[in-house]
Amino acid sequence: MTRKVAIIGMGNVGAACAHYIVSNGFVDDLVLIDINEKKVKSDALDFEDAMANLPYHTNVFVNDYSQLDDTDVIISAVGNIKLQDRVKPDRFAELEFTSNAVRDVAEHIKETAFDGKIVVISNPNDVMVSIYQQVTGLPKKHVMGTGTLLDSARMKRAVGAALNVDPRSVSGYNLGEHGNSQFTAWSTVKVLDHSIAELAADDGLDLDKLNEDIRMGGFTVFSGKKYTNYGISTAAVRLTMAILNDAYIELPVSNFREEYGVYLSYPAIVGRDGIIKQIHLNLPQEELDKLQYSADFIKSKLPEEFQVTSD
Amino acid sequence: MTRKVAIIGMGNVGAACAHYIVSNGFVDDLVLIDINEKKVKSDALDFEDAMANLPYHTNVFVNDYSQLDDTDVIISAVGNIKLQDRVKPDRFAELEFTSNAVRDVAEHIKETAFDGKIVVISNPNDVMVSIYQQVTGLPKKHVMGTGTLLDSARMKRAVGAALNVDPRSVSGYNLGEHGNSQFTAWSTVKVLDHSIAELAADDGLDLDKLNEDIRMGGFTVFSGKKYTNYGISTAAVRLTMAILNDAYIELPVSNFREEYGVYLSYPAIVGRDGIIKQIHLNLPQEELDKLQYSADFIKSKLPEEFQVTSD
Amino acid sequence: MTRKVAIIGMGNVGAACAHYIVSNGFVDDLVLIDINEKKVKSDALDFEDAMANLPYHTNVFVNDYSQLDDTDVIISAVGNIKLQDRVKPDRFAELEFTSNAVRDVAEHIKETAFDGKIVVISNPNDVMVSIYQQVTGLPKKHVMGTGTLLDSARMKRAVGAALNVDPRSVSGYNLGEHGNSQFTAWSTVKVLDHSIAELAADDGLDLDKLNEDIRMGGFTVFSGKKYTNYGISTAAVRLTMAILNDAYIELPVSNFREEYGVYLSYPAIVGRDGIIKQIHLNLPQEELDKLQYSADFIKSKLPEEFQVTSD
Amino acid sequence: MTRKVAIIGMGNVGAACAHYIVSNGFVDDLVLIDINEKKVKSDALDFEDAMANLPYHTNVFVNDYSQLDDTDVIISAVGNIKLQDRVKPDRFAELEFTSNAVRDVAEHIKETAFDGKIVVISNPNDVMVSIYQQVTGLPKKHVMGTGTLLDSARMKRAVGAALNVDPRSVSGYNLGEHGNSQFTAWSTVKVLDHSIAELAADDGLDLDKLNEDIRMGGFTVFSGKKYTNYGISTAAVRLTMAILNDAYIELPVSNFREEYGVYLSYPAIVGRDGIIKQIHLNLPQEELDKLQYSADFIKSKLPEEFQVTSD
Repeated sequence: MTRKVAIIGMGNVGAACAHYIVSNGFVDDLVLIDINEKKVKSDALDFEDAMANLPYHTNVFVNDYSQLDDTDVIISAVGNIKLQDRVKPDRFAELEFTSNAVRDVAEHIKETAFDGKIVVISNPNDVMVSIYQQVTGLPKKHVMGTGTLLDSARMKRAVGAALNVDPRSVSGYNLGEHGNSQFTAWSTVKVLDHSIAELAADDGLDLDKLNEDIRMGGFTVFSGKKYTNYGISTAAVRLTMAILNDAYIELPVSNFREEYGVYLSYPAIVGRDGIIKQIHLNLPQEELDKLQYSADFIKSKLPEEFQVTSD
Repeated sequence: MTRKVAIIGMGNVGAACAHYIVSNGFVDDLVLIDINEKKVKSDALDFEDAMANLPYHTNVFVNDYSQLDDTDVIISAVGNIKLQDRVKPDRFAELEFTSNAVRDVAEHIKETAFDGKIVVISNPNDVMVSIYQQVTGLPKKHVMGTGTLLDSARMKRAVGAALNVDPRSVSGYNLGEHGNSQFTAWSTVKVLDHSIAELAADDGLDLDKLNEDIRMGGFTVFSGKKYTNYGISTAAVRLTMAILNDAYIELPVSNFREEYGVYLSYPAIVGRDGIIKQIHLNLPQEELDKLQYSADFIKSKLPEEFQVTSD
Repeated sequence: MTRKVAIIGMGNVGAACAHYIVSNGFVDDLVLIDINEKKVKSDALDFEDAMANLPYHTNVFVNDYSQLDDTDVIISAVGNIKLQDRVKPDRFAELEFTSNAVRDVAEHIKETAFDGKIVVISNPNDVMVSIYQQVTGLPKKHVMGTGTLLDSARMKRAVGAALNVDPRSVSGYNLGEHGNSQFTAWSTVKVLDHSIAELAADDGLDLDKLNEDIRMGGFTVFSGKKYTNYGISTAAVRLTMAILNDAYIELPVSNFREEYGVYLSYPAIVGRDGIIKQIHLNLPQEELDKLQYSADFIKSKLPEEFQVTSD
Repeated sequence: MTRKVAIIGMGNVGAACAHYIVSNGFVDDLVLIDINEKKVKSDALDFEDAMANLPYHTNVFVNDYSQLDDTDVIISAVGNIKLQDRVKPDRFAELEFTSNAVRDVAEHIKETAFDGKIVVISNPNDVMVSIYQQVTGLPKKHVMGTGTLLDSARMKRAVGAALNVDPRSVSGYNLGEHGNSQFTAWSTVKVLDHSIAELAADDGLDLDKLNEDIRMGGFTVFSGKKYTNYGISTAAVRLTMAILNDAYIELPVSNFREEYGVYLSYPAIVGRDGIIKQIHLNLPQEELDKLQYSADFIKSKLPEEFQVTSD
């Protein structure tokens, strides 16, 4: 009888998700939760002050975990705002703080009757997805991370800019950890119906420069405002809508891959039942090695108690 | 051949306008201008990182005043970010800083071939609208402020909450200065086809409490996050779309009223030619007095050099 | 976990509702039902052929009444396509044919586990709403008709055109039967903050001409294409969204009024529980008489077996 | 200062384009032109009756060719409504009638100051695009046809259905004539990061059945309602928005290919300047032969006077 989404963590990212959702009338009920009660109440009232000028109505609930009982999708944007002033951007700098916050949130979720899907934005992403899944005990396919959906969008932006085409006309994926060990699987990238290898050969596309561009994208955004929010919130809401719509769309998100024994980003078919089907890419050995390295790295950072075991 | 909008000032308010516009595909070309080049480039890149996951394409231009030559509407969200930590919320605390910034921006605009409309969000709103009009020399009807479009939305939110109806089912206006001297013209407010006086008598609606609620709305939002952005940006974008669409819709915005000799908020018909027609409300003496007081207050705060003269 | 809407009757009106819904991604699951199986399958496939070029995914189900079990809102657009070539537009010309069709559909609905809301477009509207409510046995507040929501929109269009303002800047209602006995309650109409009486006196607005314009609106549309569909489908979908969003918005729709003992159009607050609250207008005697006449007319056309009894 | 689109031909297809545009607020000014003045006025009034219930305002102009002077994009949906009852669906059955109608419309356009882009839906599509270009004398890249953008969407729908994925997760093109000689270039089709050949081998995907499914798609829709409109209008509006947005997006549309000497469908980059760049696919010989056959077929049907000459 309703599309009901909860956003936990109303920092810059969570607030941008909420803004996108409210201004488009994507859901009927929106639950906002944050430990900073003054901030989340302020955002909720601000959205309500927008509604007389918006086409659609959204019911906003604040800091009420009982509202999760019948929530369809929880977006976790829990993060450490205080760490924003850190000099070196490194998602693992957030590890200890966010692990504790996420564990705490996950335990609160577990106490409710919530039986929906969790879309995790919190970083380090793959680790946080694991913590959510382990603490809540939800099926592995019902917990996923935005992962490299954002990195893939950044790759498409960079490749599109280099070739003067819309990012939506670039296909392909970034894989692995949503972090420093992620990489563009160039073997999957296609533009103008040509492989990147052909384009590099024919049009002199400089892959090293592109790689650097993509890798530095987030940091450029970050260094200019000390956070990134529009790209990531758009990715998270798109993923959430794919779940609500039961879209069966292919998206590179963090999902549990048995063969690696960790959550990492790899394209999957997403629908109302979460990760509906996992894709198998025909990657060359070089990319398989990078993916294994990325998987090992995630595993090494994941506290033992949160290791997800294969079925 | 295009809907082209520029946002000058990419603080929390300008950025929320841009986010609303980009995520809905409202315009074709979007020009973003800010003195903090790192911040505005960061936002622009962040929006471009969103585009692979959005349905519509928006061309983003950064810090290029020459793009204003064929811009349709400029949204001015110029403000003083550094003043955000002020303890007492008072829009006039921003006066000196913002006057200088706005004068500077207006002179830059004047140097371009810009011949569109300006929607001013900057505070104190009515004063800043006057400065933009005086410095650019644009027709008075082509420069307007969001004014009490936001205060009216807050009134609708508060009245709607008190009577358990959607804010869009409340009609009526807040008038005067977008600041402490603004007031709800209760004589214009109607809900459920009843005047507020009837509802106060019959349903025990407490107008004093409501007045306080409305007046404090912005401050509650402000105190929780040190800025307000969603309500005001939604109002600004709605006004911008009314101009682009040539909607001839009635909105309470800051427009130059000959009889008061100042820009102040009063409902007007808005279309592609700006303020198409001014409304004449049948206000009771008490509200006329409040409006005169508000007009006098705005005049007293407006530096002589920026006084707008009547035709 | 989903917004699920069913449209029964895929003639020009039902199809326009479906097109509006699919092209905006308003719902997740859409059930289409029509006795002309070839036609409804054709429309469903046509929508699916659109989806690769649309931003949002919609799951379409065809002619499967079991899908109503968990449907939130049924839109009934059941009508008599064959009667479209009738010379004189008269919604009661459709009475016998549509009564039988609607009774049949309502009995099918009753056999499912459907426990949602029904939005009736079928004409004569107030009679068909009664039949749906009586046959399904659903609570009176869960069955409603688009009624004069369309006539009110037509009134706003005509008044807006006469005064050169956007229809959304006109407030007020058409009341009574969605048919020849409906009327504009001019006492409720306000534009530019003036009553229609003032505008008629001051601006020479000709109310008789306007009345004729409004009354003939639908027939002008009808005579040009032998059906009307865009205005009515937009009204029906707006009403449906108000229910899904739990908007508590005020809309003039056909709802059961105890004091008249029939379904007729009168503004009400609409939300997820259907008709949440009924409004009481302060109508002058002349309009009360018209409303009574309209109520009596509806009653006279309603077969005895479908008379809705007061509580 | 505006997004201005004209639709010429308000049959089922043109009307569906207009409905999609108005209900989404995609443009500011919409010009509707049809030789059946009663019908087009009826549709225009019907849209205006919708506007009080829609979020955005659209200005509608009827049968006024002078409005084309500053129109950005003309969508030609000129067709032969009377031929709708033909038994065998064959787009060339429409040739003579539509050629004359299109030539007439193109001459009217030529008499205006129109200097925008033309998106042709009229069938046989590639022939009609040629006639528009030849008669108006507009640059070849400013006149294009929806071509196999619809056939490609149908292919994606059929392949998606066969593999249980969203059509938007299928990439690839149908090429050639938008008619019986069009074909799916299977060498370009990729799903789940696998070529169709792999999927045929591994998952037993039956390409012959799929080919039949795709080819028959339009006829199934057609046979059920004697026209097809939702898929084609969505394609046409998407193409129109790509032009307005200056999206530089890759779309398979009918564009003039020097090497074939005719307009035919082949992917191209589309932006505000029309066909920005033409793609070169690496097609296998079998598909090159099919494309040559299709090009020859189009040429054979194109009256000599409308042959487009290469530069």
